[in-house]
Amino acid sequence: MDTPLTPVSVREVGLRDGLQSIARTLPTAQKIEWLRAAHAAGQREIEVGSFVPARLLPQLADTAEIVAAAKTLPGLVASVLVPNLKGALAALDSGADAMLLPLSASHAHSLANLRKTPDEAVADIGRIRAERDARGARCEIEVGLSTAFGCTLQGKVEEAEVLRLLQAALDAGAERVGLADTVGYADPLQVRRLFEKGFAIAGERLSCGHFHDTRGLGLANVFAAWQVGVRRFDACLGGIGGCPHAPGASGNVATEDVAYLFASMGVPTGLDFDALIALRGRVGQWLEGEALHGSIARAGLPKTLQKEPA
Amino acid sequence: MDTPLTPVSVREVGLRDGLQSIARTLPTAQKIEWLRAAHAAGQREIEVGSFVPARLLPQLADTAEIVAAAKTLPGLVASVLVPNLKGALAALDSGADAMLLPLSASHAHSLANLRKTPDEAVADIGRIRAERDARGARCEIEVGLSTAFGCTLQGKVEEAEVLRLLQAALDAGAERVGLADTVGYADPLQVRRLFEKGFAIAGERLSCGHFHDTRGLGLANVFAAWQVGVRRFDACLGGIGGCPHAPGASGNVATEDVAYLFASMGVPTGLDFDALIALRGRVGQWLEGEALHGSIARAGLPKTLQKEPA
Repeated sequence: MDTPLTPVSVREVGLRDGLQSIARTLPTAQKIEWLRAAHAAGQREIEVGSFVPARLLPQLADTAEIVAAAKTLPGLVASVLVPNLKGALAALDSGADAMLLPLSASHAHSLANLRKTPDEAVADIGRIRAERDARGARCEIEVGLSTAFGCTLQGKVEEAEVLRLLQAALDAGAERVGLADTVGYADPLQVRRLFEKGFAIAGERLSCGHFHDTRGLGLANVFAAWQVGVRRFDACLGGIGGCPHAPGASGNVATEDVAYLFASMGVPTGLDFDALIALRGRVGQWLEGEALHGSIARAGLPKTLQKEPA
Repeated sequence: MDTPLTPVSVREVGLRDGLQSIARTLPTAQKIEWLRAAHAAGQREIEVGSFVPARLLPQLADTAEIVAAAKTLPGLVASVLVPNLKGALAALDSGADAMLLPLSASHAHSLANLRKTPDEAVADIGRIRAERDARGARCEIEVGLSTAFGCTLQGKVEEAEVLRLLQAALDAGAERVGLADTVGYADPLQVRRLFEKGFAIAGERLSCGHFHDTRGLGLANVFAAWQVGVRRFDACLGGIGGCPHAPGASGNVATEDVAYLFASMGVPTGLDFDALIALRGRVGQWLEGEALHGSIARAGLPKTLQKEPA
């Protein structure tokens, strides 16, 4: 096992993944307040929005403004989700530091979510890479391999197919790849196994674990991925957004819970708990009526926790 | 890592640990209904109550009756908690298969909970063992080492003290020992480390992990303990009882969530999910107004889960 002292990065996805899962639209000013407070709490990677048609996701129609605000914050890597070439062009125009391209390992999920087969989505990655390179832009291209551990539509997703698409994404020009348990089906042994096989293909370019806590295994899966070398995780403050497939159940692992898991083990994350918990409270007020998830905010930190020096 | 196919045993503690944490008293008939349904769902170890003075825990005053009911169920190991020699004599009279003796690794918790120092509690173990042997009774003596991972009163609990008391409990006559994260302070690396050290002292006699989910790490800790060889865990249906130190937070890991963790990894537990979830619903009705915890009952099983043959 790796030394516990290698830092771990927690990428905040609440402003995109969280907000897109709830009906109401948070005003731009509050999103920017969230962004600044997250940065002040130590978060250095934030997915700030998505370049998708505003008629599909009006909640994220102000993504370019949020990117602009993010670019004023020192040391912050602002990423955006883009579903296609048109979105990628908008991302390049916005000056985002990175774009996240979804690629569903489940054929059924790919058709339902992107209206493309996985291989058509891979072809898009190639076109986006060519366009970015032609522009000489510095926007990093990361592919998030969703439904990598199973799919609510299709059921089982074969590991061989996940690994084939991982290789295909890299071949098409992705600079980083991640594995996502989009629906909360993963178990810790599966996580270890699939990341180990993924590392054998992608090496350090496999650099993100995205887990949902839908069935209570979110933090066990983060721990299992960390055990085999994953050092960067997506998470969503307050676990907002829930799980669209299971009313009342949680979706993304909560940022503050992931931060607590690592802090409890002595792994540095650079995150300030008190600031995260305070921000969670404000976001909860802004989204009054939406369920917040996560445990540590309810229970409080243990007396024994060693906080990182500020 | 061990082969995933070694079965794991999940001991139900809801009828003792769960019910003692809530104010209302469940009628004896409902406790017996719970007991029978848990047995029908495949549970083969159940902590059915506690022999403590009824003025302290009126909820558990009918423990002898519950033991009697348990003894009619084939293959069931019925255990009871006993805090002292008087309780142990009642346990022996009842015909319980096993008695669980609490021993706090935290000096402060020991004084608050048992009004004895840890070493005075160890001396009690010796007296209880002598009495059991003198009677020729077959009631197994198990010691649960509580606050082994930290304490809300005292804060840090030194590993050396936990291990010293583990050895002392064995020397005094305990036949099995377990480590308990009574307050939800444990982290997965600490769990691995302390169980590995405990196995070096106690070998197979160290045979139970008792985890709380107070801060969201319950299942990660179960997984970590399983990784180093623990094959028997305490859990509480619906996570009832919560955490007395943190209102709104959960206490014991939920039986159905622990069952799901192992099922997801392909580890047999002998438990029938549908029966457990149905029982959870009934217990929730009996305890209307009490919060139930746990994730899998809200989210439902994944399509991909392989259920054990009945």
